[in-house]
Amino acid sequence: MVTDKNIYTVILAGGSGTRFWPLSRRKKPKQFLKIIGGRSLFQETLRRVKPLADPKNIFIVTNAQYKNSVREQSVGFKIPESQILCEPQGKNTAPAICWAALRIYALNPQAIMMVLPSDHLILNSSAFQQSIHQAIALAKEKYLVTLGIVPTRTETGYGYLKTVKTKSAGRMVYTVNKFVEKPSVLKAEAFLKSGNYFWNSGMFVWRADVILEEFRKYLPRIYKPVKLRAGCHPSPSFISMWSNLSPISIDYGIMEKSKRVVTVPAKNLGWSDLGSWQALSQALAPANAKKGNYQKGKVINIDSEGLFVLGDQRLIAAVGVRDMIVVDTPDALLICRKDCSQKVKDVVSLLQKSHPKLL
Amino acid sequence: MVTDKNIYTVILAGGSGTRFWPLSRRKKPKQFLKIIGGRSLFQETLRRVKPLADPKNIFIVTNAQYKNSVREQSVGFKIPESQILCEPQGKNTAPAICWAALRIYALNPQAIMMVLPSDHLILNSSAFQQSIHQAIALAKEKYLVTLGIVPTRTETGYGYLKTVKTKSAGRMVYTVNKFVEKPSVLKAEAFLKSGNYFWNSGMFVWRADVILEEFRKYLPRIYKPVKLRAGCHPSPSFISMWSNLSPISIDYGIMEKSKRVVTVPAKNLGWSDLGSWQALSQALAPANAKKGNYQKGKVINIDSEGLFVLGDQRLIAAVGVRDMIVVDTPDALLICRKDCSQKVKDVVSLLQKSHPKLL
Repeated sequence: MVTDKNIYTVILAGGSGTRFWPLSRRKKPKQFLKIIGGRSLFQETLRRVKPLADPKNIFIVTNAQYKNSVREQSVGFKIPESQILCEPQGKNTAPAICWAALRIYALNPQAIMMVLPSDHLILNSSAFQQSIHQAIALAKEKYLVTLGIVPTRTETGYGYLKTVKTKSAGRMVYTVNKFVEKPSVLKAEAFLKSGNYFWNSGMFVWRADVILEEFRKYLPRIYKPVKLRAGCHPSPSFISMWSNLSPISIDYGIMEKSKRVVTVPAKNLGWSDLGSWQALSQALAPANAKKGNYQKGKVINIDSEGLFVLGDQRLIAAVGVRDMIVVDTPDALLICRKDCSQKVKDVVSLLQKSHPKLL
Repeated sequence: MVTDKNIYTVILAGGSGTRFWPLSRRKKPKQFLKIIGGRSLFQETLRRVKPLADPKNIFIVTNAQYKNSVREQSVGFKIPESQILCEPQGKNTAPAICWAALRIYALNPQAIMMVLPSDHLILNSSAFQQSIHQAIALAKEKYLVTLGIVPTRTETGYGYLKTVKTKSAGRMVYTVNKFVEKPSVLKAEAFLKSGNYFWNSGMFVWRADVILEEFRKYLPRIYKPVKLRAGCHPSPSFISMWSNLSPISIDYGIMEKSKRVVTVPAKNLGWSDLGSWQALSQALAPANAKKGNYQKGKVINIDSEGLFVLGDQRLIAAVGVRDMIVVDTPDALLICRKDCSQKVKDVVSLLQKSHPKLL
């Protein structure tokens, strides 16, 4: 497949977090876990973009402490060392994207950038690739394009993009006019019916020059210092500059303010942000699976339903269990009711005091 | 405390079984597990009889494969080696008791024997000792005495002793006139109200000569061969004789037939047969405990109730769990809804095929 030499990929792989504790730990966050099949979410992301962009055009922004994970897991993709951008500290998405955009623009002023999280699930790669092609077409017209996932249920755990259909240069586009944070059930029901609301996936496509123009306009406090030092990483002056940045997300810093934001509604991607064990279990064991069970490892299941097990070395026997997450690791075990999986963060808080080595 | 030199104790410690899998294994059945505090149920049984009988008068009947466990766990009790009777195979309770009775009678024709299981829980030792004293008094009058536990709930998992109060030699005794197997809920309710029904505890007191007389009468097919070979264990002739015995319980073989059976109603013993994980959890975490939780090991509990955890080395985090048994061991983990704990035997059946090493 011949790819457009102007297409660049930026994979955001710096996220920390322990929502998938005890599998995810400080040194091994979600994106590097081989939860599904034999590959990590980060590796799946790399594989998904392979038909879309030259590997030489892939940039990865990560945290310095994950550099080895990135290297190990991207072996075979031949990503130039200089394109693994290591943030001294995480500063949320805007600074990371600004840095990558400056680097890409310096290489190719005609560049079009895809920006992709590395810790989401997309089961249907070809639907994803199709949506990206649509997004690229719009990005060429100087839009900031977000992929908006067409909702399939009344989900209260996601942010939504409110859109209006407008005509632009002879075609219909979905202009984003509002970012809505996690809604109530009632609102989520209305959103689902309306057809104008989409889940905010955090996947973007735009021209490097256009996003930099927006940074200059809406986030000069990020744009100016990063532009000044973008080329001198990892010098002390870069590290000092970076440590002085205030963390801010691209949504809050640019997307909610820019007038150029449109959405490509993406259907049937099999997308999930995998924000919790429950989300992962929903993604992997759909309602039509055998009694809703998902079992990995040596498992004996007697009369259990809605059971999600990630086993390790030991045998796990589950008897009469309903709607539970069981995750086994050599030094820690989680047993969690599915609808309580947001509370794994409370476990993590307690561990910070009592057993920090288990994080 | 001066003990009657005629009082002998027989502790039945040959039981196999894996109801407490994964803690109990073929090589380490329930009676040798240190489930409660630092001592096994077998050791607790030894401690309980210490004030009642001279340690020199203790006999232990066990299976040959548990001889080392018996020795290790009875260190300090100075039980003569010759009084650890090792069955070549388990043949249920009647042959074991017959053998012990013959050995004891040979030492002391005036002997009174207590026969005690080693795998039950008795929380109140002094109430137990008081009941035994009453039983000894009746045994001296040639009764076969069973300890009948005064029921405290409509329990459908136990066998019951049906009794009638009768006058005998100027005192009231509870004569047992029927053994009732696990009843329906309705029947159990009626039993609880009546005051004439008691839980069959499997604890007995009788004179050695009296029980041997009953064996001769009701179980000659056990009595005759065992009497012939009782003194020549572990010779090949003993082993061959033993292997030819048909297994039979003392209840079925003698107690249901003899006319000498009376009960001492035993109250407030804190008794449980610990027939399942649920029974153990009921015994250890009574309803008035904090949210019904019982936790041993490194446990983080967020919003869990009715949780029973026996941890091992690893940390266990339980989130939003209700009425569950969690038992962790180095090579196997059990997660079981409390009201399904009878199904642990199904796990064990499956393991026999798939992972026999875990039994």
